[in-house]
Amino acid sequence: MSKEITREELAQLDASDPLTGFAERFELPEGVIYLDGNSLGALPKGAAARAAQVVNEEWGKGLIRSWNSAGWFEMPLKLGDKLGKLLGANPNETAITDTTSLNLFKTLASALRTQKADAPQRRVIITERDNFPTDIYIAEGLADLVNSLSQESGIPYEVRLIDDEASLRDALGEDTAVLALSHVNYRTGAMWDMVGITAEAHRAGALVVWDLAHAAGAVPVDLNGADADYAVGCTYKYLNGGPGSPAFIWVNQRHHDRFWQPLSGWWSHNAPFAMADHYTPANDVRRFMCGTQPVTSLAMIEVGLDIALEADMSAVRAKSLELTDLFIELVETRCAEYGLELVTPREHERRGSHASFRHEHGYEIMAALIERGVIGDYREPEVLRFGITPLYLSRSDIWDAVEILREILHTGSWQREEYAVRNAVT
Amino acid sequence: MSKEITREELAQLDASDPLTGFAERFELPEGVIYLDGNSLGALPKGAAARAAQVVNEEWGKGLIRSWNSAGWFEMPLKLGDKLGKLLGANPNETAITDTTSLNLFKTLASALRTQKADAPQRRVIITERDNFPTDIYIAEGLADLVNSLSQESGIPYEVRLIDDEASLRDALGEDTAVLALSHVNYRTGAMWDMVGITAEAHRAGALVVWDLAHAAGAVPVDLNGADADYAVGCTYKYLNGGPGSPAFIWVNQRHHDRFWQPLSGWWSHNAPFAMADHYTPANDVRRFMCGTQPVTSLAMIEVGLDIALEADMSAVRAKSLELTDLFIELVETRCAEYGLELVTPREHERRGSHASFRHEHGYEIMAALIERGVIGDYREPEVLRFGITPLYLSRSDIWDAVEILREILHTGSWQREEYAVRNAVT
Repeated sequence: MSKEITREELAQLDASDPLTGFAERFELPEGVIYLDGNSLGALPKGAAARAAQVVNEEWGKGLIRSWNSAGWFEMPLKLGDKLGKLLGANPNETAITDTTSLNLFKTLASALRTQKADAPQRRVIITERDNFPTDIYIAEGLADLVNSLSQESGIPYEVRLIDDEASLRDALGEDTAVLALSHVNYRTGAMWDMVGITAEAHRAGALVVWDLAHAAGAVPVDLNGADADYAVGCTYKYLNGGPGSPAFIWVNQRHHDRFWQPLSGWWSHNAPFAMADHYTPANDVRRFMCGTQPVTSLAMIEVGLDIALEADMSAVRAKSLELTDLFIELVETRCAEYGLELVTPREHERRGSHASFRHEHGYEIMAALIERGVIGDYREPEVLRFGITPLYLSRSDIWDAVEILREILHTGSWQREEYAVRNAVT
Repeated sequence: MSKEITREELAQLDASDPLTGFAERFELPEGVIYLDGNSLGALPKGAAARAAQVVNEEWGKGLIRSWNSAGWFEMPLKLGDKLGKLLGANPNETAITDTTSLNLFKTLASALRTQKADAPQRRVIITERDNFPTDIYIAEGLADLVNSLSQESGIPYEVRLIDDEASLRDALGEDTAVLALSHVNYRTGAMWDMVGITAEAHRAGALVVWDLAHAAGAVPVDLNGADADYAVGCTYKYLNGGPGSPAFIWVNQRHHDRFWQPLSGWWSHNAPFAMADHYTPANDVRRFMCGTQPVTSLAMIEVGLDIALEADMSAVRAKSLELTDLFIELVETRCAEYGLELVTPREHERRGSHASFRHEHGYEIMAALIERGVIGDYREPEVLRFGITPLYLSRSDIWDAVEILREILHTGSWQREEYAVRNAVT
């Protein structure tokens, strides 16, 4: 990219971009450039009306009848199948339910049980030190439960943290039960090669769980193409499902009918309304559900999903890469002297859809940016994180965001005391 | 109660009842008498506006900033403390989070770990055969996980089902780890003596989990007064939180800082935004949380809670008993010849806030009632279930509902083929 790039040129490119029209499908506040869609996606037009319909009509007028008449009962699998089209899933392999943490617990427990039957010496869960922390904590919680309630003797279950591809290769071995990785790293934006890593783990006898929180709707994903075993992820980031909207779980059909997952609530029962006094699991992805879902939050997900399904995913990916390249280029040229260090891989095939820079005053700089309407976020340690969401961001937005960043750095306006005050959520 | 009771007398009693005004706080559709608030509570006025505020303002305009500025991060504990006032909880003992099934898993796992440390021979979870099935299934899932991943030798964990108070006394013993009961039975409306049973279980060395799904907001509950260990329950029944609104978990402070619960997601971490690569649990009720909650569904709970907190719980209980007595009396006198058999205990101290009758054509009769606007529900086997919610039901409603039931039974209008067709959710 040439350094003489101008805002006018970028605006011309925006005008001829077929994805530009998608921005009108979202409600974005005036004066905001939203670079945090990788944390909470924007509000799709239609989501508020869907919520109002659920509350006023389906709940208020339909009352209990809406479990049948409004299709509430079928919603987790119906929306799961819609989402599955973005993930290379077959029908009836995906459910929208519970949270990413809980779904990870289900998949890890299912994987450990499968290994216990097939290769009982395999007791190690491998994951990344730099994974989103809840993934590590959930693996630790599962291992700790089993070890602490188990008999005293014998090999304990263990969570082993790897740091990079080389240490992953070293770690995969005869004791590995399951490998759990985030396809796109929440902090750096680095992306694993799903096909290659899955094949390598399988050759080592491990099962593989992919956390797609920062991947679903952001990068092309083909779970069956990669022959993955399990996947989990989030609907409130690039899928624009709404704050805390329920997460998803995908299970390769070959794991549907072997073992229970332990969060075996009534929605995972083969006949939930028979009210039987013993558990019999469903023989499909329903086995990986648990209890009743928050209908209003769940229903809104469909609005964001429908928009995502209208867009061509390869065009979304191409624009994501272009906008991220542009953002990196502009920061590195126009803000060159202010000590921002790129932590996201430059190679296209090794990154997702956000760009992160390290700066020792990252927290204060991000606080100053947010006050100026450029909303990214901050992640420990010292990382300014910028989500690139091609459905509602333009090249001109990227230009304007970097100009505001440059001004903040140039004037030193981030050095106000109030910017250093930490919020509950940082 | 005299048999010469008339609708006019009932209407006069309604007119002078201080709780009558609460009905205006709910949106109830014309032509409906809603006797299923024990399954899904009615829509409080204000809930739709709260949902619209979350979606349009907090999500749409506030975007990611609303985790701080709109108080999303604090909501599970803030609403938990509000709810706790109805349950005899101390501040910071209650969280609104996840589902009842998941919260039960957390409490049972925490109880088993505590017993493993204090009395390792205690490996039996006692619950009721007639419990809401998910409670049994979750206990089975936990025992199955631990047994299957455990070493081969040793005493397995076990779920033991009791049928009544006598068999509970027989079952409580030196191998009992935890007793998990529903305070009010979902089908029959029968209520356990929380104080007496908790004391008896403690004397036998067991910990006690109460499922308050059909009790919270329906009957007076004093968890600390009963010295209970754990409680879980539902906000979408008598608390009118909305379809599938997140559930609650209450943990006696003495269990806050001993052991991990295994669903140890980042919201249960002592410093969730430190992004530490190992788990350190919070030392309060946050330890029993897991992941991000569905904000829109969660926020609406506050509207129902505020109404419940305005009402005097002893007045609510007195009216519930009066309405239920009236309903039973009217069914047994005015529908005497149609074979309806009461399955709910008659004694006030032994029942919650719904009344159930058995009839071999219960399914069809309920379908006919619903078509006439008298909405109760059906539970296998053969049980017609009627929820009595004093905040929005009057004595006249009870009279009218029984009159419609009588007409359906008298004319045999329930004998239409379409009434026998089973829905997905029955």
